[in-house]
Amino acid sequence: MWQQLTRALQNGNIRGIARSISLVENEAGGYEQFMKSLPGSTTPVIGITGPPGAGKSTIADGFIELLVKQHKKVAVLCIDPSSPFNAGAILGDRIRMSAWYNHPDVFIRSLATRGALGGLNPKIIEITDILKACPFDTIIVETVGVGQSEIEIAGLADLTVVVLVPEAGDEIQTMKAGLMEVADIFVVNKADRPGADLFVHNLNAMLGPAYSHRKAAIPVIKTIASQHTGIEELVDTVSGLLKTSNDNEKKNLLLAEKAWHLIQHKRMRDINKQQLVTAIKNKLAAGNFNLYQFIDTL
Amino acid sequence: MWQQLTRALQNGNIRGIARSISLVENEAGGYEQFMKSLPGSTTPVIGITGPPGAGKSTIADGFIELLVKQHKKVAVLCIDPSSPFNAGAILGDRIRMSAWYNHPDVFIRSLATRGALGGLNPKIIEITDILKACPFDTIIVETVGVGQSEIEIAGLADLTVVVLVPEAGDEIQTMKAGLMEVADIFVVNKADRPGADLFVHNLNAMLGPAYSHRKAAIPVIKTIASQHTGIEELVDTVSGLLKTSNDNEKKNLLLAEKAWHLIQHKRMRDINKQQLVTAIKNKLAAGNFNLYQFIDTL
Repeated sequence: MWQQLTRALQNGNIRGIARSISLVENEAGGYEQFMKSLPGSTTPVIGITGPPGAGKSTIADGFIELLVKQHKKVAVLCIDPSSPFNAGAILGDRIRMSAWYNHPDVFIRSLATRGALGGLNPKIIEITDILKACPFDTIIVETVGVGQSEIEIAGLADLTVVVLVPEAGDEIQTMKAGLMEVADIFVVNKADRPGADLFVHNLNAMLGPAYSHRKAAIPVIKTIASQHTGIEELVDTVSGLLKTSNDNEKKNLLLAEKAWHLIQHKRMRDINKQQLVTAIKNKLAAGNFNLYQFIDTL
Repeated sequence: MWQQLTRALQNGNIRGIARSISLVENEAGGYEQFMKSLPGSTTPVIGITGPPGAGKSTIADGFIELLVKQHKKVAVLCIDPSSPFNAGAILGDRIRMSAWYNHPDVFIRSLATRGALGGLNPKIIEITDILKACPFDTIIVETVGVGQSEIEIAGLADLTVVVLVPEAGDEIQTMKAGLMEVADIFVVNKADRPGADLFVHNLNAMLGPAYSHRKAAIPVIKTIASQHTGIEELVDTVSGLLKTSNDNEKKNLLLAEKAWHLIQHKRMRDINKQQLVTAIKNKLAAGNFNLYQFIDTL
């Protein structure tokens, strides 16, 4: 039943990809069978994350440009955690990439996700796996490092690029622990700004002791993405790491992480939060509410 | 069977509290029955969060001091998300509060939590509910706003205080969306530092449009916690908000959030991540691995 759609994916048919993604988004009947019928794939997934305004989309744009020049096919998944505080910044960022929307070798899809209960959104896992079934050479997943999304992306990507700007110096000491820990490569973008060299120096110093359990140093690459400076080095470094890394342990961990979230989604599917609120409201009105007695009834 | 332990909690017996917490931490046999036997409680839970170094513990310390002066009993739960990047800062912070460890009206407990899969840690929910069964007038939950913990605390606390410092100006534009959204009260600590007034001004300006859906403006309070300046205003504001807020909708949402996480924990208890990794490794070795077929076997 799903063979035709799978074949469409394998042929890189855009309408087939769109239809498959809709299937997953709507959890249409039988979509789980469809996912089970997808062939295995080794397409690398590259995560690009970092705070809003760091230039992630410009970096992704440069990535696409280089890959297309090399006659490669690339899919980009843009994940927008909905937040009233940075909606503007994200939208502004995305405009740059739109130049690629109609290019035959590029597939771009934006997903708005409310920071879902329970972490890594299972839909993102599933859509990434659909893209992996297509003849793309590279899949880029771009997400803003707000709240928990930086940890989410690390559970999804074979290699995570964290994009920072020189001004981020202070933040690194404080807020970005999550962001720092997921990086396989650091990019210091807008490297023509004052303090860039000092920032790179501090970053390298900081990565020393805390990362001593890692096998190799984490590359720090300076870019001025708006001028295409440094992008080639970045793409080469990514390719190099992907080629040399034979990190089966990490691959297994990623799969286990994905499995955990998919199982959770399946098992919690019948628990609707709005229904919980209503049920609790009724119980409270009846008096003598105990949360642990309540959950035992579900 | 659990009546004696419940009575010990109701009497504020320290050993009884410690034993109850151990029960929950170890998921000892029958602990779920124990949780179901706990009496209802309306003790307010106050969350204090913010980036490392903002002075959360000094604020909590001031809170304790004032409450103790008013002959109130207070419990403090310190949640440490384990991260190599801020361990030092957290430990340094905590030293200040240790003066209260042996005070008869104060109970302090630290919990180290690895940013657990699936968000809000069910153990924190359960331990908070144990403390609610004790004769404390106030429960303070203090956590560092790193990664997802700021969202976690909002699912737990009746009222969340977000502590910032004047230097945080830049970050607010970028990283702290999660932190900003959970605040019921903002504290600008270290308000004797340069730029404090400008920062408060910007904060108020920023809170305007984005929070227009809120009923009332969010208070912004300046403190110099190390000199006890502003703490009284903060404690008064907290008390005032707790008294006037009759926000049953929020209470229901909090309970639903807690219920969701407890149900999830219960349903996912048999899924051990290490076992997942091993099972996946074996399947991969056997060839032709499909994630969706795999999760279907669990």
